[in-house]
Amino acid sequence: MKKFTRLAGLTALGVLAPAAAYAQDAGVSQETAYIFNTLLFLIGGFLVMWMAAGFAMLEAGLVRSKNVAMQCTKNIALFSIAGLMYFLIGYNLMYPGDGWSIAGWLGAFGLTSLPQPAPDATMEDITYASVGSDFFFQLMFCATTASIVSGTLAERIKLWPFLIFTIVLTGLIYPIQGSWKWGAGWLDEAGFADFAGSTIVHSVGGWAALAGAILLGARHGKYDKEGRVNPMPGSSLPLATLGTFILWLGWFGFNGGSQLAMGSLADASDVSRIFANTNIAAAAGAVAALIMTQIMFGKIDLTMVLNGALAGLVSITAEPLTPSLFMSMIIGGIGGVLVVVTVPMLDKLKIDDVVGAIPVHLICGIWGTLAVPLTNSDASFGAQITGIVAIGVFVLVVSFVLWAILKATMGIRASDEAERMGLDRAELGMEAYPEFGKGSQIA
Amino acid sequence: MKKFTRLAGLTALGVLAPAAAYAQDAGVSQETAYIFNTLLFLIGGFLVMWMAAGFAMLEAGLVRSKNVAMQCTKNIALFSIAGLMYFLIGYNLMYPGDGWSIAGWLGAFGLTSLPQPAPDATMEDITYASVGSDFFFQLMFCATTASIVSGTLAERIKLWPFLIFTIVLTGLIYPIQGSWKWGAGWLDEAGFADFAGSTIVHSVGGWAALAGAILLGARHGKYDKEGRVNPMPGSSLPLATLGTFILWLGWFGFNGGSQLAMGSLADASDVSRIFANTNIAAAAGAVAALIMTQIMFGKIDLTMVLNGALAGLVSITAEPLTPSLFMSMIIGGIGGVLVVVTVPMLDKLKIDDVVGAIPVHLICGIWGTLAVPLTNSDASFGAQITGIVAIGVFVLVVSFVLWAILKATMGIRASDEAERMGLDRAELGMEAYPEFGKGSQIA
Amino acid sequence: MKKFTRLAGLTALGVLAPAAAYAQDAGVSQETAYIFNTLLFLIGGFLVMWMAAGFAMLEAGLVRSKNVAMQCTKNIALFSIAGLMYFLIGYNLMYPGDGWSIAGWLGAFGLTSLPQPAPDATMEDITYASVGSDFFFQLMFCATTASIVSGTLAERIKLWPFLIFTIVLTGLIYPIQGSWKWGAGWLDEAGFADFAGSTIVHSVGGWAALAGAILLGARHGKYDKEGRVNPMPGSSLPLATLGTFILWLGWFGFNGGSQLAMGSLADASDVSRIFANTNIAAAAGAVAALIMTQIMFGKIDLTMVLNGALAGLVSITAEPLTPSLFMSMIIGGIGGVLVVVTVPMLDKLKIDDVVGAIPVHLICGIWGTLAVPLTNSDASFGAQITGIVAIGVFVLVVSFVLWAILKATMGIRASDEAERMGLDRAELGMEAYPEFGKGSQIA
Repeated sequence: MKKFTRLAGLTALGVLAPAAAYAQDAGVSQETAYIFNTLLFLIGGFLVMWMAAGFAMLEAGLVRSKNVAMQCTKNIALFSIAGLMYFLIGYNLMYPGDGWSIAGWLGAFGLTSLPQPAPDATMEDITYASVGSDFFFQLMFCATTASIVSGTLAERIKLWPFLIFTIVLTGLIYPIQGSWKWGAGWLDEAGFADFAGSTIVHSVGGWAALAGAILLGARHGKYDKEGRVNPMPGSSLPLATLGTFILWLGWFGFNGGSQLAMGSLADASDVSRIFANTNIAAAAGAVAALIMTQIMFGKIDLTMVLNGALAGLVSITAEPLTPSLFMSMIIGGIGGVLVVVTVPMLDKLKIDDVVGAIPVHLICGIWGTLAVPLTNSDASFGAQITGIVAIGVFVLVVSFVLWAILKATMGIRASDEAERMGLDRAELGMEAYPEFGKGSQIA
Repeated sequence: MKKFTRLAGLTALGVLAPAAAYAQDAGVSQETAYIFNTLLFLIGGFLVMWMAAGFAMLEAGLVRSKNVAMQCTKNIALFSIAGLMYFLIGYNLMYPGDGWSIAGWLGAFGLTSLPQPAPDATMEDITYASVGSDFFFQLMFCATTASIVSGTLAERIKLWPFLIFTIVLTGLIYPIQGSWKWGAGWLDEAGFADFAGSTIVHSVGGWAALAGAILLGARHGKYDKEGRVNPMPGSSLPLATLGTFILWLGWFGFNGGSQLAMGSLADASDVSRIFANTNIAAAAGAVAALIMTQIMFGKIDLTMVLNGALAGLVSITAEPLTPSLFMSMIIGGIGGVLVVVTVPMLDKLKIDDVVGAIPVHLICGIWGTLAVPLTNSDASFGAQITGIVAIGVFVLVVSFVLWAILKATMGIRASDEAERMGLDRAELGMEAYPEFGKGSQIA
Repeated sequence: MKKFTRLAGLTALGVLAPAAAYAQDAGVSQETAYIFNTLLFLIGGFLVMWMAAGFAMLEAGLVRSKNVAMQCTKNIALFSIAGLMYFLIGYNLMYPGDGWSIAGWLGAFGLTSLPQPAPDATMEDITYASVGSDFFFQLMFCATTASIVSGTLAERIKLWPFLIFTIVLTGLIYPIQGSWKWGAGWLDEAGFADFAGSTIVHSVGGWAALAGAILLGARHGKYDKEGRVNPMPGSSLPLATLGTFILWLGWFGFNGGSQLAMGSLADASDVSRIFANTNIAAAAGAVAALIMTQIMFGKIDLTMVLNGALAGLVSITAEPLTPSLFMSMIIGGIGGVLVVVTVPMLDKLKIDDVVGAIPVHLICGIWGTLAVPLTNSDASFGAQITGIVAIGVFVLVVSFVLWAILKATMGIRASDEAERMGLDRAELGMEAYPEFGKGSQIA
């Protein structure tokens, strides 16, 4: 088949068979819809899974070479831990159905159970998509939340306290607040709207990271006594660029899959619209950051452009469906501006966020959530603020307490000697790039 | 279900339910076809989007380390710019439907508009696939065209003129020539055949790159006064390899998605055939380049093998459906040979193409387009040459004029000092690998 | 559509249209099922294709920088060779249908032929999925088998003997043993069960690697005279991490696609279950290796964690459908333990496996195959052992003879000088990272 004029003209041009050529003149059977819905979860899920690699590469590229192996270790470990914890406790806690422990506030406890292979299953036995595909898809959002935390705290947090925090985050903190909206809990009843997780995923990761960053303190040498910021450039900008492209790709699954259905004309069209909106928001975020850095600093800053693209993606995540392409461009572009503006503000506060995860995921997560009522008449600013504040307070407080307990017991900060030497050699006894001579490394 | 003998034998073996087990004995409903077609655009689109990362990694690996951050910046910026320009002007210019400004030559001007979410849409309201999915898919081809240019001009072009050229390329040059064929314009009526864009995408990128390379001149030191070529090896061959694999993967979406439909037995079979043909053409291109370099140079050249794979892919892109596997192998293999032969010819002409994009995309784009009539009886050599020449002249002339204007006004070439220092430090003020000591770097 | 409570509750909550809203109350038409099945092969196939990039990055990261370009060359070459050989001979040899040369033992010889584009094809003409999609999918398994070999033999094998071995492996060895089970040969009749290839793909690659490693000998300096192991750390742990994430992603296609059908409620549910089981097995393998290395060595070993994830994946591959999530976690976790335990054992035997492919693919391939009867009552330990031994003996003996012939004729081992200098400069005349100064490189 040839590429041909616009779709609207295709039937007229005879490319499309008229309806009569189809065996049935319209409609999707229930079983066909089930397969499409399941397939959307699977494709969406593997794309979001791929984001774990994106975070790993982004962070590996933005930390100094002496901490790269540690950052890789944290990323593969946190993704694996999420994979176990969401099975052991998270999924039922987040989607309790009728089994709430405290209705609307605390879900069900128990292992996830998938139906046995069922060659004789009929539509009466099942729901609108396979439970296994839903579990697979939702799990990846839990893992994404944990991925956000590791970048902020890089280069000075010890490995084991980070892993213990990850266990609690993926097993308890994320699923509990997630159930409030996506498990049909109290925030859902309050009218809070968050399509794919600007708040529920991204700002949750951001709050958890912020709590850790405050308790952990900045890297030695990052801020001098006069308050000047000492740049500590990342070891590999191509890996950071690769990570950004991976995240961009994965986000089509993140947002598109959150339509949760593809088995009808309307749902398939909506998924398409989400893909297009997601892409233009990212593009606008990157271009906005590019222009902003040129204006503010007189030259383009690649890491800001990368974070600008991610900022656009986070910003459109709370509502990727109802905006027009134009509005999506605006929403994403504002996200890009916010990142460029916020990064120096965090530095003023001496909050040391190694990869810029707080501006990208927390600030733009809030912005995206607030922007929902601009295009979605079912949403209200009141409900959005309720959700942002409720989830923010819950995650910030619980995370802070947890980090504080870890700090008081096992300690969370690597020794000065370990930080100077790099966590790779100090904690892992290996180097990420053992053969590459050191140039301008900042001790 | 077990893996089992050949497909032909599956029904006999009882693996397949007989037709009677299905609720309907045959046929795909119109709405089901709509979903399949839309899904093909979405999967094809995200795979082609991924090619942007492939170009970024290929180029980051093939330039010297002092220009890697700049190459990453260009790649993320051009992809973002394409994302905005195709919305602002490109899509309607390329697919004007009934709204041509000059019928068959110049399309419609206006922002792209996607239908609002339509839960109550019926088949009467819509076409054979979602407009959003088509926009998403077609946009990625526009972005790919821009990606091709950046590699050739690497290591000496200034950032802003490159970005301005990208704006015009993605907003005007690509969509206008694209409309001639894929928008049902005059070249389509003339019988020109280009299934997925050997000419419309790949040689367009190649012509634009060639015009720039001529006006820009070679990198200092690339050719000495005796005409000898001074090799300037890329900084990271694993990244170049990664980029090639990414492009190979993305190409299944590029060619397979260009079937534009998957909602029938015939279309799904054709998409499969395209996947298989695309893969063997790439494999043959790589093996041909491997053998050629062993014969010609006495040792295998990895970068040639990588470009050989890409050459095979470009060569099969004009017609990935009608050839047999054997013919696809031949077409791709010839592409691989062409690259090995053409690279030294360009050097003789002192046209400095940093990554070999002109041999791969322009030369093999022409070859692939000329090869269409070998297997597709609907195509003619006359029409193919008409298309190649018309698009070639248009793009080369317009690009040349545009580059010349940019050269005369803001200048396109970095200063000698900046080129020596590397564009990363000179223009961006950063380094891609700030910690890695420099070895045999060529100044 | 909003994220909402558990799937079981969706209909009750009014999110799902009741069955009456569908044009047909149930069922998937035969043509629709054909498209779904074909689509599963295509998605599965491109995901498994992506694993070729994963192996390339894993190996590029785990060899020393002086051999990285060679490792990239081998990986792109072997994938291309597989793409040609499987067309020329492998596919018909593996899936002979009724055309066995020696029934159940040796398949048919001949080029693969795909049906011509068939716009008028009807269900009477075709099988349950497109032949092109099946060829594409099965080819990728052949290529994966070859990928496994290259890592073990890295840093000292010459390029051409490796390529010749790859030709025979992908054209003859893999397809012949594969036909015994998946081509409905004698092992299939014997009741041997291997869902996606723990034995047929992974341990076959492992046996071929083991034969080569024995004949090739260890790298100079790897084992000293007192039997101590001299670690030779890989050059880029982030690339190794990237490779692992790529493989993890690709494995969803590897195992999920091996369901071979998605055109019914039951098949789509089974594919979902396989995705979820595959993920948790990988996660458990990684966590098990993480805990094991902490206990055994007092610190976490990143390369072991990466191999632990891969070990979990290989272990679940023989039966990813019937286990529960809990059992999948156990099966994968045992795989992770096996890798940590087996790596030092190989070193005791002075078998030098550069990337750990033998523990991951051979040992865990055997473990996964033995674990099938634990959850699948159709399988028996007797049949499993029959398959493991028969395929193991066949592949090990044929590989050993082939490596021995290559050793006796053209030689398989690079000269001491080439090994010291690195195969990149010695055989290819290039460097993977020409600009990065050398640090602690081990000569």
